[in-house]
Amino acid sequence: MTRTVVESKTKTAVIGFDEPFCVIGERINPTGRKKLAAELEAGDFSTVEADALMQVACGATMLDVNAGVVYNSNPNPNETEPPLMTKMLELVQGLVDVPLCIDSSVPGALEAGLQCCEGRPLLNSVTGEEDRLELVLPLVKKYNVPVVAISNDDTGISEDPDVRFAVARKVVERAADFGIPAHDIVVDPLVMPIGAMATAGQQVFALVRRLRNELGVNTTCGASNISFGLPNRHGINAAFLPMAIGAGMTSAIMNPTRAVEMEAIRAANLLANHDPNGSAWIAFTRILDATKDGTSFADASKAAAAAGGPRRDGRRRRRA
Amino acid sequence: MTRTVVESKTKTAVIGFDEPFCVIGERINPTGRKKLAAELEAGDFSTVEADALMQVACGATMLDVNAGVVYNSNPNPNETEPPLMTKMLELVQGLVDVPLCIDSSVPGALEAGLQCCEGRPLLNSVTGEEDRLELVLPLVKKYNVPVVAISNDDTGISEDPDVRFAVARKVVERAADFGIPAHDIVVDPLVMPIGAMATAGQQVFALVRRLRNELGVNTTCGASNISFGLPNRHGINAAFLPMAIGAGMTSAIMNPTRAVEMEAIRAANLLANHDPNGSAWIAFTRILDATKDGTSFADASKAAAAAGGPRRDGRRRRRA
Repeated sequence: MTRTVVESKTKTAVIGFDEPFCVIGERINPTGRKKLAAELEAGDFSTVEADALMQVACGATMLDVNAGVVYNSNPNPNETEPPLMTKMLELVQGLVDVPLCIDSSVPGALEAGLQCCEGRPLLNSVTGEEDRLELVLPLVKKYNVPVVAISNDDTGISEDPDVRFAVARKVVERAADFGIPAHDIVVDPLVMPIGAMATAGQQVFALVRRLRNELGVNTTCGASNISFGLPNRHGINAAFLPMAIGAGMTSAIMNPTRAVEMEAIRAANLLANHDPNGSAWIAFTRILDATKDGTSFADASKAAAAAGGPRRDGRRRRRA
Repeated sequence: MTRTVVESKTKTAVIGFDEPFCVIGERINPTGRKKLAAELEAGDFSTVEADALMQVACGATMLDVNAGVVYNSNPNPNETEPPLMTKMLELVQGLVDVPLCIDSSVPGALEAGLQCCEGRPLLNSVTGEEDRLELVLPLVKKYNVPVVAISNDDTGISEDPDVRFAVARKVVERAADFGIPAHDIVVDPLVMPIGAMATAGQQVFALVRRLRNELGVNTTCGASNISFGLPNRHGINAAFLPMAIGAGMTSAIMNPTRAVEMEAIRAANLLANHDPNGSAWIAFTRILDATKDGTSFADASKAAAAAGGPRRDGRRRRRA
């Protein structure tokens, strides 16, 4: 059974075929968040802190950290992003204990992250592009970390799922040349918007099955892409995630502070027999119950965590 | 592609691998509804009428009609159920235009239903029990109707999915002896409560795949069984349905007046590429929007139907 081990200084998370779905919190990312980008350039990390705490309280298994700010004062991310990545990772790993995911397209930022991150972070990402393979795989090997592999290559993102599968296979094979095992590759088969491509769901479900059965790799995706441009996106996401889990997907990069999607994942874990005795489901429904008086999901989650509900490793605390 | 054709006098519904999920409304059933049972014995059909209209407004593809009342005045259902079934079917088919499903364990009630039902109803059900096979399959052949086959036999309901598959195969083979094609058999693989059997979800998903791939049959289930005994049942049902649809299930006997489950099905239809252009999804989200002021899902659905939204055959009305 394929197991991708990701660790913080004190905590281990396993992405795996026989594990509860791994929720990688996506919030710490200035892309498309102008206010956060401006805060980061100004050295204000209060939103990063709040996002870290809230995502973990809501049930994130690990947190993605992206420092992709284009500074107004210096437009060269190769200079600005590595030190910002270091700063953000140090801050987050000092605040929460879940494993982290170092997310950048700037090789220097990836290496800066690898140098400061405790434990065994997940690197995000390599692609099938030649220059990315040559830049990122040596880092993966040197630091002995797992890596997200996005299935696009120098020709771009193919609409043909067979091409995307072939790209994933190329990355796995190239990684093997570096001595990197398949269980340290987490493939993102790329989720297209269903509103633009009616076969987008079927493509992903079929790809996940093939990636799992033929390459033996774990999988991830930017889950909310599926609903882009359509009304009531949460409703689409909340059906997509169980269907993806049913097809064998083992993680997603997503917003864990949304109750609807998290409920769908908790229920799918139960239905996939990844929640022995339903204890995680029952604990989660107590949080939902606590939102009925208007308390937000995040606040109810925080209160449940503070009250010492089921520990995040799945074992309950002993009663005093 | 397997297609099970079910018809009312004026309307055709197809259960099929390439069709939107078929929602069989379960509400017209006195089992466990004491008030309804008492009403029916007293000749009061107002609840039946209301349930028929509401389920169709909420999007039921067809309606199940069960007349299983044990009369206080006469404890022999072989005498009381056939005329009650006739009365209820005539009432419902006079009121709504969707195809019907004749649901009884009393052979006389099945035949009474077949005699009065217009079009091509779905018969519910035969099992792998010898006496049921010998009683029901001749009716299926004589009236040329499709039938639900429940995968239990004279030994009861097996917890072993391989045994349940073997029962389903036996029914399909026995039906073939009568000249009944596999596409007229809709197998219910039996859904166990996940709270009692942790593998219940995995069992059903695997069974549905096998039934589809090896026997070429459509499938159905009592969807809400999966969540029996657990808190927040709708949340479990709303993940189960998309996972079952992803595995290939093509219909369920369920309550169509529950918005959460119907939303999950509409989204799963979209994701399974059974909602071209997303028009059914978009129309459904308008109904959900209309519930935001406190209007019930049923009332919002009725209002949308009355306003001449997308027709139930999936085509939009032309604008005047």
